[in-house]
Parts: sequence; structure tokens; C-alpha cells
Amino acid sequence: MFKRSPLAPKYFPKLPKIKGIELLSMHCGIRYKNKRDLSLIVMKKNTNVACVLTKSKTPSAPVLWCKKIRKRGKARALIVNSGNANAHTGKEGIETVKKTICAVANQIGCHKNEIYVCSTGVIGEYLNSDILISAIPKLVKKKSGSWKEVAESICTTDTFIKGAKSSFKIEGKTFNIVGISKGSGMIFPNMGTMLGFIFTDLPIPSNILNSLLKVAVENSFNSITVDGDTSTSDTCILFSTPSVTLSKSINKLNDKRLLVFKESLDKVLQSLAKQIVSDGEGASKFITINVNSAKSQKVARNIGLSIANSSLVKTAIAGEDPNWGRIVMAIGKSGSSINQNNLSISINKTKITENGSLLKNYNEKLVAKKMKNKNIFIDIDIANGIEKATVWTCDLTQEYIKINADYRS
Amino acid sequence: MFKRSPLAPKYFPKLPKIKGIELLSMHCGIRYKNKRDLSLIVMKKNTNVACVLTKSKTPSAPVLWCKKIRKRGKARALIVNSGNANAHTGKEGIETVKKTICAVANQIGCHKNEIYVCSTGVIGEYLNSDILISAIPKLVKKKSGSWKEVAESICTTDTFIKGAKSSFKIEGKTFNIVGISKGSGMIFPNMGTMLGFIFTDLPIPSNILNSLLKVAVENSFNSITVDGDTSTSDTCILFSTPSVTLSKSINKLNDKRLLVFKESLDKVLQSLAKQIVSDGEGASKFITINVNSAKSQKVARNIGLSIANSSLVKTAIAGEDPNWGRIVMAIGKSGSSINQNNLSISINKTKITENGSLLKNYNEKLVAKKMKNKNIFIDIDIANGIEKATVWTCDLTQEYIKINADYRS
Repeated sequence: MFKRSPLAPKYFPKLPKIKGIELLSMHCGIRYKNKRDLSLIVMKKNTNVACVLTKSKTPSAPVLWCKKIRKRGKARALIVNSGNANAHTGKEGIETVKKTICAVANQIGCHKNEIYVCSTGVIGEYLNSDILISAIPKLVKKKSGSWKEVAESICTTDTFIKGAKSSFKIEGKTFNIVGISKGSGMIFPNMGTMLGFIFTDLPIPSNILNSLLKVAVENSFNSITVDGDTSTSDTCILFSTPSVTLSKSINKLNDKRLLVFKESLDKVLQSLAKQIVSDGEGASKFITINVNSAKSQKVARNIGLSIANSSLVKTAIAGEDPNWGRIVMAIGKSGSSINQNNLSISINKTKITENGSLLKNYNEKLVAKKMKNKNIFIDIDIANGIEKATVWTCDLTQEYIKINADYRS
Repeated sequence: MFKRSPLAPKYFPKLPKIKGIELLSMHCGIRYKNKRDLSLIVMKKNTNVACVLTKSKTPSAPVLWCKKIRKRGKARALIVNSGNANAHTGKEGIETVKKTICAVANQIGCHKNEIYVCSTGVIGEYLNSDILISAIPKLVKKKSGSWKEVAESICTTDTFIKGAKSSFKIEGKTFNIVGISKGSGMIFPNMGTMLGFIFTDLPIPSNILNSLLKVAVENSFNSITVDGDTSTSDTCILFSTPSVTLSKSINKLNDKRLLVFKESLDKVLQSLAKQIVSDGEGASKFITINVNSAKSQKVARNIGLSIANSSLVKTAIAGEDPNWGRIVMAIGKSGSSINQNNLSISINKTKITENGSLLKNYNEKLVAKKMKNKNIFIDIDIANGIEKATVWTCDLTQEYIKINADYRS
């Protein structure tokens, strides 16, 4: 692995077992020499599933497969490899996915349309299906391993392994959500992709899972950016095993028992999303952008992402320069209609502008000092409504260019 | 001025005089010590005018003024300062524009709504109107100067002065188009803005000028990107003096005599646009992206800009790495519907992919060698129609980060 990001958390969290889930992983040698690169997660029969896939118009072969099977809403297995994204590989890539599914189906005896496939790594190179296929029987014979092993196996250019958990009680019983993810910028010598896999032992039907996941992804993975580039393979999948029985099963989205689940899901997804930002290529600062008093959440997020995607804002923060004019520029280019005469901007809780212009007693030295902090907060008030959104990103440093330009694939 | 870009042209072109135009410029001391920072261009009565302004939702006070007066379609003067953008300066900024216009109107005796104002430089700082107002009477007393002087006066972080020309014949008479511009990235220690001023002695009514300018800007200034950031002050103005009379005046957009004018206008605007890219902050490579066989010009330009705005593509080119997977990614994230199975990609005329996957005999070493060139051509064929577009950009280097992060405003 690469040198650990200065923004990385201290350790990988202890993650609980989820009933009905078996974790298998190994090194099969797709690209890496010294780390696990293949995982198979086997689920109990009748595990429900929901997934959110990349909006890329050049999606990878595994993404096309997941898109095809997701309507069924059931999962028995998830197979993931790192080192090769199987993206832009034409018919051959599709063939490789098919062979993989057949091999897994043969081994665990389930319907092909209940096998989810993800690949992450180099875009455009053909994925050697022989290596994969011959590894699967070995993988199935392994003992169930740890979340950490699986989380490691999906990493590419990540500088640390990412996991999160949350638990909650319903009807006196404790339920868990466990999530693992990968991503560190978007791509690095053609490596790509954000992957997120979430597991819970609370039984929820797939149509409700889908609705819950969509909202939770909007407020987490879709509220972060490192370089504004979108991978061909971004995938977030949520699995719900039928291991524990409730007095009455959950059938409606407005079931009150889902409130604690939603809260826990947000917590897990936001933790994973922030870990990805903390692993942004070359990142030295973690940036939180709060956009308040907007007409809608969509407008607030749009303005937040416009600031978060601005190279000029991100380089200014890297340089610890309170260059708030660039924030004004980024708000302006978002395309969202605002009245700039109502705008106010703060950095790390120090107000800089109000009612559309610089405060008369603005103290630039104070803000410059506060910007030496590792954590930067930008607060925007649009004074145009009651909705808000938070977006997370990192700064843009020379190290980002080094990683992405100087290293050769 | 900063160290001249390695992509700069050898010299500033010799630009002809345009009848009915007087060029006045000076140093008044808004921010810079050693260069001209204020210009006044005075035009003959009945000069027609068209302008294209930034789409920013936080436009500067001068942009708001130009927006207000452009319907009139007549211009007697253009006043431009560098060093301060008069952007996000609230009521005070608007007041400063008003005072400037009154001072100019008093000096040259014309209607206020025929005076165009542009400011470029720091965003958010209050522009000292006293300095401006007291300079105007001095400026008016100056002798008419050169295009080069005016072009210098509008520069901020540019590393070279930008100008272009083209001439054509109508009814046996020679007419000219002269253009000057500024811009070098988007903003640098809060400096901003692309400005383009174009002058012709062919008499054209303002409604027709407007239509012609819009199309020409689409194919030039709107087809370039350095860092994807949009300034609060971007302005392009086209002036047409009534100095030469035609046998029959031009009244229709489809007047055949306009064909040579359009061609010349494209030439001048594209030359200026390419000069801005050549002055991109930290640029070491000039990148031309041709998107062919698209359903519409809009789709082609959208895909071209998506590639041109991708940090990952731009860093790969800086590193001379034929990382074509990133190009696939950037095409995918453009949002335009394409069939990736029909896609082909070439770099510097060497084909890499065809029908949606890597050529079996792809020679990466050859492409890597060709990428050592200063000029990089990316050709995309979508095989989905007959429309095309060209987009220009530069690479993203460590020098860009240095300029934008390490230097303090």
C-alpha cells in the first residue's frame, strides 16, 4: 500500500459479524503481488439487496451485469476483484463476467441472477478470466474470514482500509449495519472507482431497501468529491439478510421502526464517504462545506459541489490562503440562481462577507491563522429558504499531480 | 509580468488601425506598479456593438452594467481597468461603475448607455473610484496609442500580451478585424477573467453582430478550458464602426457578404482563445480534442469539454502517460448518451481503441513517444452522426498548484 494519508483514522474499527454472511478472500494474482485481490461474500438464501450504480455512460461490464439483475432484488453472493476494472473491454469483458457468474453459481448452487459482480482497477485492459475462474473453487474452500481481509482485498490505490459500523435496537433485539469501502481520489495510473458494500441483519424488502439506499447515498457518497471525475465502475450495494425475525415484518417505507435504521445507515455511509475523502490523492486538509438557507436541498448540494470541485478553491486551501473571492466565483459558476446581495461566507466560523460584500472589519490575518488547521469549514448562507446540504472534499496539492502525472502505469 | 509561458507565440502580431477607433491607455496605480492598468477606447458616433457576458450567478458590477445597456446596441467608449475586478462589492461596486460612466460621459460628451465598462483583477476588494475618476481627464488628453499598449493594460497574471487580426475584401475594399484579449487560467491569487475585445470597420447592425458573435464565441472562447472555473467578469465585446460605406448596407444575417466576415471573425476569436490556453497557468502542453461523428455539435462539444476538464486526463498528459482509460472515463462522465461499443480513440493520430475496446496490436510505446510532443491531439469518434466539435485545453502540472496555492495574494 501507499504511504498512509495524513488524514487517515488511527485504526480500522472492530466490525461485528452479520448473521447469514460468510466472508471469503484470497490473493489470486490479477495485478498485485502482496495483497488479497479477490473476495467472495456468500449470503443466506432470501437475502434482499439494493444497489446504486455509476451514472457513467461508459460503464464497466460488471456494472452492466448488476444493472441487469438488480430488479430481482435477491442476492446469494458478491464477488469482487481488484487490479482490473473490466471496463471498456467490449464483448470479451461481458464474457468474463458471464464465466465468473457460472463458476460461482456452480460452486454455491444458486441462481445466476443472484450473484453480484464488481471489479476495480485498470480501465481498458482485458481481465484474465482464467485466473479468476480457477481461483473460485479455492476461495469457496476457505474458512470464513474477517471484514478487514475483505476490505483490504477491494483496495487499489487506497492508503488505508475503510470500514464502519452502527447498531440499533428494535423490539429489544440488537441489529447491526456493517460497511466497507474503497476509493482514494478517483483514478490513479488508470485505477478507478468508489465501491461501497453495506450489510445488515435487519430484514427489509428490496423495494424499501432501494428507497432507503438512494437517499442515504445522496447524503454521503454523492456529497463527496476529490477531483470531480466519475469512475466507470462506482457501485454501492446494500444487503439485508433474513437471519432475525421480527414480530411483524417491515412492509412500508414509513414503518416507524425504520427510523433508527435510517439513522444508522446514514452514519455508516457518511463515515465511509468521509474516509474516502480523507484518502483523497495528495490530500492534506479535510474540507466540510455547509450550504444553508437554500430554496431546496438540491440547490444547496449543487452550490456545495461547485465549491468542492473548484481547483482554484482547493489549491487556495492547500496554500492556507483565505482567498474567499474564489468561493464567490465557485458559487457563481454553480448555475443555481441566487441573489448575491444576500450571500454570506464564513471560514472556520469567522465571518468574511455579509449581504454580498466584504465585512468592513474583516480580519484576514485571523482567517489565515485558522486555515492552518487540518479541518477546514466553509459556511455559506444564501438567505433564500430553509433547506441545507453538507459536502465534503479535500484540498488539491502538488502531491496530487505527482501521483497522477509522474508515476507511470 | 510572470515568466513567459513555454507555449507562447514568438511575438505580438502587427495589428492594423481600425478607422473610427482611438486607443488611450495609461498607468493609474490601482494595483500594479510597473504596467499600464487603464484603457479608454473611444469610438466614432454610431458604432454598433454586441456582447457576450459571463453566465456566473455572481457577476461583477461592470458585467451588470454591460447587461443593462447592451440592448441599445450602440457604443462610444469602452473603459477597462486591471488589478481589481469590482466583483462581489455590493452597492459600493455599482456606485463606482456609475461614477466612472459619468466621468467618461462628461469628457467625451456621449450618452451614458453607450459606455462599456470592464474590470479584471482581485475579486471582492473595493475598487478605489477616486483613482479611476481622477485618471480619466488625463487619459482623454493622451495621444492615440497602439493596440499593444491597450492589450498590455488589460493583463493581470498573463505571461504574454494577446492579439490577433484578419482582413477580407468586400466590393473591392479591404476590411479588418482586430482583437485583443487577456486570461491565463482563470484566477490567480484572486485574479480572474477572460476579456476579449474585437473591432471591425465593416458596418454591421447590432442585431446581426449579436448573432454572429454568439456563434463565434461558441466555437472559440466557449470551446476552451484551463481549470473549468468560470470568472465573475468574463466579457467579449464586438464593435463595428461606421467608417466605410458599402454600396448597400448589410441588413440580413444571410447576406452573402457576411461569409468572409464570419470566417475572419472565427479566425480572430479562435486565435485569441488558443493564446489564452497557451497561457494556461503552469501549462506545458497544448491539447486539441476533436470529437467527430456526433449526433449534434452540442453533444460533441460536451464530450470534448468533459475530457478537457478532467484533472486525471490533464495530469496524465503532463506525465506523458498514454492513460487512455481516463479518456474513456471522461467520455462516460460527460452525461451524453453514447454507445461505447462504437467508440474509437486516437492520440496524435495513432489509433488506440476501436469498436469499444483496445486494438489487439496496440503499441503503447509508440503513443508514449508521441506524447513527448508539445502538441497533443486527442481524436474521438462516436460513430453516432455527422456533427463535430473541437475543444482546446492545456495540461495540469505541479506548476499550476504552485501558482495557485503557494503564492499568497
